[in-house]
Amino acid sequence: MIKVAIIGYGNLGRGVERAIKQNEDMELVGVYTRRTPESVQTEGAKAFTMDQLTLKKGDIDVCILCGGSATDLPTQTPEWTHLFNTIDSFDTHAKIPEHFTKVDQVAKENQTTSIISTGWDPGLFSLNRLYAQSILPVGETNTFWGKGVSQGHSDALRRIEGVIDAVQYTIPNSEVIKKLKAGEQLTLTTRDKHFRECFVVLEVGAEEEKIREEIISMPNYFADYDTEVHFISQSELDQEHKAMPHGGTVLHTGITHKNTKQVIEYNLDLQSNPEFTASVLVAYARACVRLAKEKQFGAYTVLDIPPKYLSPRTDEELRKELL
Amino acid sequence: MIKVAIIGYGNLGRGVERAIKQNEDMELVGVYTRRTPESVQTEGAKAFTMDQLTLKKGDIDVCILCGGSATDLPTQTPEWTHLFNTIDSFDTHAKIPEHFTKVDQVAKENQTTSIISTGWDPGLFSLNRLYAQSILPVGETNTFWGKGVSQGHSDALRRIEGVIDAVQYTIPNSEVIKKLKAGEQLTLTTRDKHFRECFVVLEVGAEEEKIREEIISMPNYFADYDTEVHFISQSELDQEHKAMPHGGTVLHTGITHKNTKQVIEYNLDLQSNPEFTASVLVAYARACVRLAKEKQFGAYTVLDIPPKYLSPRTDEELRKELL
Repeated sequence: MIKVAIIGYGNLGRGVERAIKQNEDMELVGVYTRRTPESVQTEGAKAFTMDQLTLKKGDIDVCILCGGSATDLPTQTPEWTHLFNTIDSFDTHAKIPEHFTKVDQVAKENQTTSIISTGWDPGLFSLNRLYAQSILPVGETNTFWGKGVSQGHSDALRRIEGVIDAVQYTIPNSEVIKKLKAGEQLTLTTRDKHFRECFVVLEVGAEEEKIREEIISMPNYFADYDTEVHFISQSELDQEHKAMPHGGTVLHTGITHKNTKQVIEYNLDLQSNPEFTASVLVAYARACVRLAKEKQFGAYTVLDIPPKYLSPRTDEELRKELL
Repeated sequence: MIKVAIIGYGNLGRGVERAIKQNEDMELVGVYTRRTPESVQTEGAKAFTMDQLTLKKGDIDVCILCGGSATDLPTQTPEWTHLFNTIDSFDTHAKIPEHFTKVDQVAKENQTTSIISTGWDPGLFSLNRLYAQSILPVGETNTFWGKGVSQGHSDALRRIEGVIDAVQYTIPNSEVIKKLKAGEQLTLTTRDKHFRECFVVLEVGAEEEKIREEIISMPNYFADYDTEVHFISQSELDQEHKAMPHGGTVLHTGITHKNTKQVIEYNLDLQSNPEFTASVLVAYARACVRLAKEKQFGAYTVLDIPPKYLSPRTDEELRKELL
């Protein structure tokens, strides 16, 4: 049995607890939290303080870090990799090389193994970009996200004065996807690829038109997109928009000779983004433990990991059943 | 530069010649054939007899075997793996374990590396089955093929007395795919998943109804499917049905918790099946040479190979550009 610890218990941590129950070769040792353990409502797992984790070296095969990329993981992953094999879902794309270097150094010095930036993007989408571009080097890859909730954009809406609560959906342009799949050559701007749709709850007396204007002109978040804003009640937001669906498409259109078109398409349609991400983390946790057993210490990403390391089945079974 | 030899020059061999031209880190040393070299119409590559290949040990980094799975590869791959690193597309699913064992032994004894059963099924589809099942263990995978030409079924038609020429298309049931993607639980028979459509040219005087009956009742090939038969002229067959499109879908529908549905879908839409298969072989040829340089001798399949080994880019570039 692979002994797993969860560090941080929000939506992702809960997803990992659920995913571990679906994997017969894994057992959950505990949830480690910065909160008082008694206040954490798990689904059966025991909760402990972070301090208690330090004492567990030798009793845990791998720690799955379920904190956020903005402030938690940049310090937590290097810190816990001193003592444990670790997995994280660090997803600030521009800072991945720096994060990798830091974790790699700690892991090599302490003979541990860490797989960073797992999940679906970065993660499964990165893998599909790699396979597609390696197989069809004359071609173009486009990634589309959604329809799904973007936490970053929802947070940006909530920071606006006069906004009580909000949810933002990223919506891919299905017409553009259809044209690319049909082999059309398109020059695409940011605005062409995705729309944004916002559901916003206002304070009493807040001015709708002023806030709508503030949203659609917000740089980095909305200014470069066609954005639709709906003002709704808190109860409607709670009832209709608190699920966390997501998904997306990696579409690679290539040419093998003259004008012979070849299309590779990878789609995810997820009813729960955090539960799916958690399932990816758990599969890579298995790979992490296997690498550590082989004394392959250091930091890795999904691009490095032999696919079979994700599976509990033997090489012979995989060749027989999946090839 | 990676020095590549092509063994066998049919549609697949020609596809490999074309694919190598798209990869700047590769050069084609030559085409090795059982025919008289002068009779082989390559697109620029020099052609040699098989005997001449034996003299080339040390001058070739990897041989790409482009023969058929029925009779060529079961003997050719073990034979050439005595002297060279090799790649094949052996696709008789039931015999892959036996083929693997044979090639693995030769490779280990002779310190060479071989990647067998590459292509898209077995190959990319196998990879997608593995990733999906490892990430969502509570779920179901269905593979659909087509719309595309099946060489095996086309050959079966051509063996019927009174048939001059024929092409068979395998067509996936798009209604079933739609239902599975929507999360419906279905118990599917062979007949539910695919249709077969045959375009047949008859000898003068052959009886249409008799031959139609013979086709649709042919065991293993057509009896378990809904099959449509069209009798057409040779010129129509040549004009409309001599391209080799193919493709298909690996669809995995899983559940992460209670009834939370998660769908992973991988699609290929190929205008040329042999050229796409060739492109996969060429990417894995790069991985094969890298494994051999690391002295990782023996037989491998796509399930074993770290994804980054397919790419000419450095680890740093891949992390920066693809994660």
